[in-house]
Amino acid sequence: MSAPTAALLIIGNEILSGRTQDANLAFIARHLAGLGIPLREVRVVPDVEAEIVAALNALRDRYSYVFTTGGIGPTHDDITAECVAKAFGVPLLRHPEAVRRLEAHYADTGLLNEARLRMANVPEGGILIDNPVSTAPGFQIGNVFVMAGVPKIMQAMLTGITSRLVGGPVTLTRSVASAIPEGSFADPLRLLAAKHEGVDIGSYPAFRQGKVSTALVLRTADVAALDAATADVVAMLRDLGGVPEVVEGYGEEKGG
Amino acid sequence: MSAPTAALLIIGNEILSGRTQDANLAFIARHLAGLGIPLREVRVVPDVEAEIVAALNALRDRYSYVFTTGGIGPTHDDITAECVAKAFGVPLLRHPEAVRRLEAHYADTGLLNEARLRMANVPEGGILIDNPVSTAPGFQIGNVFVMAGVPKIMQAMLTGITSRLVGGPVTLTRSVASAIPEGSFADPLRLLAAKHEGVDIGSYPAFRQGKVSTALVLRTADVAALDAATADVVAMLRDLGGVPEVVEGYGEEKGG
Repeated sequence: MSAPTAALLIIGNEILSGRTQDANLAFIARHLAGLGIPLREVRVVPDVEAEIVAALNALRDRYSYVFTTGGIGPTHDDITAECVAKAFGVPLLRHPEAVRRLEAHYADTGLLNEARLRMANVPEGGILIDNPVSTAPGFQIGNVFVMAGVPKIMQAMLTGITSRLVGGPVTLTRSVASAIPEGSFADPLRLLAAKHEGVDIGSYPAFRQGKVSTALVLRTADVAALDAATADVVAMLRDLGGVPEVVEGYGEEKGG
Repeated sequence: MSAPTAALLIIGNEILSGRTQDANLAFIARHLAGLGIPLREVRVVPDVEAEIVAALNALRDRYSYVFTTGGIGPTHDDITAECVAKAFGVPLLRHPEAVRRLEAHYADTGLLNEARLRMANVPEGGILIDNPVSTAPGFQIGNVFVMAGVPKIMQAMLTGITSRLVGGPVTLTRSVASAIPEGSFADPLRLLAAKHEGVDIGSYPAFRQGKVSTALVLRTADVAALDAATADVVAMLRDLGGVPEVVEGYGEEKGG
């Protein structure tokens, strides 16, 4: 079996209009990376059935896992479950266990109306994803995992389905920061990257205390290859007069 | 001519790995919305030529404008210009005016090496996009606008090309906040949304001071339709015992 891959489908007009800043992509990317499942593509689509169905079918054919966020609430603009059913060509059914959970959650409140019961609609064959925050579940069907858009709920759902995912080798990450601007090492770095072709090397400018700095990020599942490439990067930066700082992971940089 | 549309292609392993939180989508979405150019789709792809070329060709065929961010620096992982040239089937040329700007910027520093000169490579027929922050330009070719990934530079580039974009009717936005949870108004809201079918109505839960609240966001270019739908939404929330607050735009809510 080849190494697993993932895609994320973000569903919602509020992201495309700029009203809401997405807060899920980076969390999902890091969580999946920790499981050895690299995120390879993200799409953001509006609350439009044809767009959701087309994007979902394109992604689920191509990647081992597809995660969706958004559109599973009780209102008219929450159409994800219907769209996933259409994408899979199966009927949308009211899931008995989901109904039971909503009934228990809303017991004696008189609040369990038809709109809230819609949150128990699941495509035929779907398996529930627990929602420990606000009860209304997500669901899995095939290789597609349908989650809420509210970050706190999404994070709880993703954590809860970890055991359903089969990961591959975990990518190790190391960051080398220095004050050398990237244009000054780009030529030797090109040769270095070609020499260490199994290591993904990214170069990211950043600004620290108003000064240009650069982070070189090295990523591979092979620790020996990572050590060798890191040593060469450090030597290259020292040759240019830099004082490279090496940290495991991404360090503190949050540049654009 | 039909109303203009836009797509955004975010290029970069650092977004897909979760290292960097994208800070460009929401800015671009709001800027374009102000010009009457709704953002309809976003894709995030890795620094892989085939992925970039395929996504760019899919998007530029479908939307009036395509904006890209990332991959136009001097290092080996900056491959956007080559990929755009391939997508358009034109050669990549060293742009004389871009070279002149870099020569002026780096005059007497001795820093203008081959790597930095790569930032003057532009697909044949490309028109420069000014970079008032760090000189190295972006470029436009056809309906595609290639911009930097660093937010400060991207924002300056986008502002600078505003006069090249032909907008349509500007969508007006109004938000109605209340403490009524969305499940309690979802049934009447469905009827209301069907009645005002020219108005896009989104419902977004949020948490204010630890309490559930909801924002209903109404969007349309037709002010009379907006007024009518807003009045109905306010009446609906009052019927349910709510104290709706109406603001122009998106208000203070920044929910997930």
